[in-house]
Amino acid sequence: MKMSVLWTARALCLGAVALSLVAELLVRLLRRLRPAGTLNEVLFFPSEVVCVQHLFSSLPACPCICPLRHGPETSLSRLLRHVMSASSSLDLCIFAFSNANLCRAVLAVHAKGVTVRVLTDKDYAAITGSQIGVLRKAGICARCDSSSVHMHHKFALVDGRLLLTGSLNWTLTGVQSNMENVLVTEEPDLVRPFVEEFHRLWERCGRGPLVK
Amino acid sequence: MKMSVLWTARALCLGAVALSLVAELLVRLLRRLRPAGTLNEVLFFPSEVVCVQHLFSSLPACPCICPLRHGPETSLSRLLRHVMSASSSLDLCIFAFSNANLCRAVLAVHAKGVTVRVLTDKDYAAITGSQIGVLRKAGICARCDSSSVHMHHKFALVDGRLLLTGSLNWTLTGVQSNMENVLVTEEPDLVRPFVEEFHRLWERCGRGPLVK
Repeated sequence: MKMSVLWTARALCLGAVALSLVAELLVRLLRRLRPAGTLNEVLFFPSEVVCVQHLFSSLPACPCICPLRHGPETSLSRLLRHVMSASSSLDLCIFAFSNANLCRAVLAVHAKGVTVRVLTDKDYAAITGSQIGVLRKAGICARCDSSSVHMHHKFALVDGRLLLTGSLNWTLTGVQSNMENVLVTEEPDLVRPFVEEFHRLWERCGRGPLVK
Repeated sequence: MKMSVLWTARALCLGAVALSLVAELLVRLLRRLRPAGTLNEVLFFPSEVVCVQHLFSSLPACPCICPLRHGPETSLSRLLRHVMSASSSLDLCIFAFSNANLCRAVLAVHAKGVTVRVLTDKDYAAITGSQIGVLRKAGICARCDSSSVHMHHKFALVDGRLLLTGSLNWTLTGVQSNMENVLVTEEPDLVRPFVEEFHRLWERCGRGPLVK
């Protein structure tokens, strides 16, 4: 009887060890296949017009007394938060960049020491309202292609791991009026090709002609 | 001794059963988290100009004798293949649609009985070269918004499970000249919001004004 109890205990132990080993294997496999907390999100525009002043402030309460609504999270505020989450690098490849709030976000990222690189379209960079000159004056490196075709991308890479891409040009009309989308993902199979394309275009563009 | 062998065998059996149960659990969990063969792909443009005639032909060899290169897979041919893979539904939400090859692909999909719905921008639908009139004449339902803002999306949903989205308008310039991207994904967290947005816009747009 004693022998039987002993062997039952051994069998149970063996089962438990086998279970824990497979559980460990399962956890490791899942981590490899899908990094913990992989972000996948889609933002649609037009975005409701609300005050975004608090995003640029370190104060606990919003310091702004403007007449806009305060508080609600919108597609624009989500986009600004993603841009400002950059801690080491921010690579922008944007056809049309004239939105003042997005420009302010990029300047804030640059001011905290993050390496910012901007690729844009040479024709659009030259029009009134473009923020490319503002970025360059702040010391941000901005390049554009010298060929006759359009650099029509609208994507951003945050720390080389988060991709923001879609139909949205970084303009006031794009954000507040048009029907647009921005897809936000950390999915490596989607991020990697954009990182490589940015590198390819950056090298190819060199220091193209830009408006001050 | 006999007792010992018997219990060792039992212990091993128990371990094996535990292992097989956890392995089954693992497989089911993986299937739920990431459907087998989830597609994630990025296409960059401009696409090399090659003959795509074979994509529209059921013949084993390309029937075309045009002077273009034959055979190589390009970003355009990949995009055409994805569009033509539709077997139950094809939902298009495209700002500018003037590319003849992409129009031909949509007509081929419609001809095999797939439900095709097209949302487009009312201003662009009216310009010379737009293929919206061609699609409508073939009996495809196309709608556009009556508001003054732009429907600037450029996405397609194949069978409600595959999303094609990016900066690319379905134009000749977009495909052959500009620097553009199309992100292709089956990731449910990315596809679902686009399916819902298409449904919302489709209901909202009703039957707007369109060129014949």
